[in-house]
Amino acid sequence: MALVVQKFGGTSVADTDKIKGVVDRVLKVRDQGNDVVVVLSAMAGETNRFVELASKMQKIPDPREMDVLLASGEQVTVALFAMGVKARGGKAVSLLGDQVRILTDDTHTKARIRDIDTGKIKKLLADGNVVVVAGFQGVTDDGDLTTLGRGGSDTTAVALACALGADSCEIFTDVEGVFTTDPNICSSARKIDRITYDEMLELASLGAKVLDIRSVGIAKKYGLPVHVRSTFTDSDGTWVVKEDEVMESRMVSGVTYSKNEARITVARVPDTPGIAARIFTPISEAGIVVDMIIQNARAGEMTDMTFTVPRTDFDRAMEIVRKVADEIGAERVGSATNIAKVSIVGVGMRNHAGIASTAFKVLSDEGINIRMISTSEIKVSCVIEEKYTELAVRALHDAFGLGDDAPPVEE
Amino acid sequence: MALVVQKFGGTSVADTDKIKGVVDRVLKVRDQGNDVVVVLSAMAGETNRFVELASKMQKIPDPREMDVLLASGEQVTVALFAMGVKARGGKAVSLLGDQVRILTDDTHTKARIRDIDTGKIKKLLADGNVVVVAGFQGVTDDGDLTTLGRGGSDTTAVALACALGADSCEIFTDVEGVFTTDPNICSSARKIDRITYDEMLELASLGAKVLDIRSVGIAKKYGLPVHVRSTFTDSDGTWVVKEDEVMESRMVSGVTYSKNEARITVARVPDTPGIAARIFTPISEAGIVVDMIIQNARAGEMTDMTFTVPRTDFDRAMEIVRKVADEIGAERVGSATNIAKVSIVGVGMRNHAGIASTAFKVLSDEGINIRMISTSEIKVSCVIEEKYTELAVRALHDAFGLGDDAPPVEE
Repeated sequence: MALVVQKFGGTSVADTDKIKGVVDRVLKVRDQGNDVVVVLSAMAGETNRFVELASKMQKIPDPREMDVLLASGEQVTVALFAMGVKARGGKAVSLLGDQVRILTDDTHTKARIRDIDTGKIKKLLADGNVVVVAGFQGVTDDGDLTTLGRGGSDTTAVALACALGADSCEIFTDVEGVFTTDPNICSSARKIDRITYDEMLELASLGAKVLDIRSVGIAKKYGLPVHVRSTFTDSDGTWVVKEDEVMESRMVSGVTYSKNEARITVARVPDTPGIAARIFTPISEAGIVVDMIIQNARAGEMTDMTFTVPRTDFDRAMEIVRKVADEIGAERVGSATNIAKVSIVGVGMRNHAGIASTAFKVLSDEGINIRMISTSEIKVSCVIEEKYTELAVRALHDAFGLGDDAPPVEE
Repeated sequence: MALVVQKFGGTSVADTDKIKGVVDRVLKVRDQGNDVVVVLSAMAGETNRFVELASKMQKIPDPREMDVLLASGEQVTVALFAMGVKARGGKAVSLLGDQVRILTDDTHTKARIRDIDTGKIKKLLADGNVVVVAGFQGVTDDGDLTTLGRGGSDTTAVALACALGADSCEIFTDVEGVFTTDPNICSSARKIDRITYDEMLELASLGAKVLDIRSVGIAKKYGLPVHVRSTFTDSDGTWVVKEDEVMESRMVSGVTYSKNEARITVARVPDTPGIAARIFTPISEAGIVVDMIIQNARAGEMTDMTFTVPRTDFDRAMEIVRKVADEIGAERVGSATNIAKVSIVGVGMRNHAGIASTAFKVLSDEGINIRMISTSEIKVSCVIEEKYTELAVRALHDAFGLGDDAPPVEE
């Protein structure tokens, strides 16, 4: 007998028929003798409806009141779900965030969990109940309701599973799992069976759609196995696990890309100490996240400083950089917004030399010019012209044998 | 500077535009230097939507979970309202039933208030806030959410006003106040300016549409003046007050009627002790409320027992009565479902003989036969044939000078 936490997102509980389907699914696991804690999101569309109502009342809705409003969404689904279990003859009790009690800080609309009281849940489980917990919400020391921000129900589920010492946490969603790359770009993309926490964190754009990044960090800290899978099929999805639990170790696990990139170059800057701080402090103070940074020393005492920012922050970043460039006597500020970042990710890279150079050769063979390179222990990222994105992704995916029919590259 | 509790029902907060209107109204009172506590219902239609969703999940929805579901309705309106106040530059904080803390028993879906903690509200008022409280809901000792049943938001408002020692409680609704009779039947019906708690309690069918009967009982106990008025006009409504505060004392304040009536007669019952208990115990055990009871002793040792039940419970009542009648050897069970009850209500009756006989004569003059009569200190009720209901109401309304143009009958 195991203790399992199962989380179902908004599309999985979008109407009463879907909720009934989820009830059946949960009761099957329960009937196999497992203890089950279910974490639910609001019905799909409800959060948008609330955001719209709020915007009609106040231009920038008060965050405390926004949380009161938003938290009512999961309240509806957990009550309906508990009724559904009882209609099937099962035992169930719903708990809101403050009833559990999921204690958070008071950063309304994006609060962080401080502590979870597991006493009530454990007692209800011992009494034979399916415990149905409202995701996404918590409560402050002062008794104010809070919400955890985007992906908050994932965080609730993973944090609850860790606090309860659950055997696993299952994240049910409307996709089958994490894929080796975007199936819309590359028809040979295949579902990954097992992936490490670190790979999941690096595969941001592939992973974030199915599992909130924050919850991956929590699962990693506690070594909790997380199973990301589809609500609408019975087949296995992707297990996110510790590194030593990934049997079939490929050098590269996935290829990911981002088009929300822009490049800024401050050319011919005097190469003196403190120059980097002069440039990047005002940018970070404006809340803009700089991704890749490359410094090219030129001949003489001059250097070029090139970096990328999210394309959505490009205009604001340029305004700041132009001002700083004047102050520090840079020769010129260059930029490009027609770029993309393509990355290959895999823990196998740690033990294999030559992965990066293979990637460079693959891109070069396709006639794709690399503008910037950045590497980490388990990731190689290249900035290229945006128009080559899909071509680059397919070429790398094939070259590292990630496609359906390709035999896995054994370590 | 006064402390006022203002309650707005579902039609008053049916959409964001209506909520904005209510915000303006509340801020006007606040700007005059008053402390204001606002009690809100769920948006009109929401409760029905929840009931429908629940019925799709479980034939008889679990009461605990039903309360979790229902309580989410007011959560939406209080958050939106608080945003609205802030958008206008005011200070506001929303509080749910369990945040206030409105402690109730654990009779889910029709809980009764046990205690109200006023500490948090008083502190928020002292800080200059409009305090926006979710009506209809409370919490048990164990932290389970409860709701107060039909008219529950009225109960919240009146109970809060009493607990806070408020100067008055205003119940805003979609009608102008309590009328001398149903304006749909009698065009000369007029709004009553002041009415006593007891009259309000007896005027069930007229009063219940605008103010929940339970809350009248609470207001009476604490001597709290309650002002029932329209959200959509500025004119005064009806003040429900202590008897000595009603200046203009009519003998009769209103004429009310009910068509949800059925009569059952158990004829020629042996007139022995305990017979009434034999008949009425099983009926009350079935949850059927018997209204009027009349026992006519016949010659000999036989008696007739006649009583009324809600027409909606008639079939079930007849089934029970037929069985009992057999057991106790009654000769016959008679019944009628084409009846109605017409009542005149007024505290003036206490000091005036002849009100009842005037009423009987008025009905007789119209050729209306009276089937049953029951009287209390401030009420006379007559059961008549249903088809005469409107005629009887108009005749009584005119005879006791309740119409618009009629001069008040002075005491």
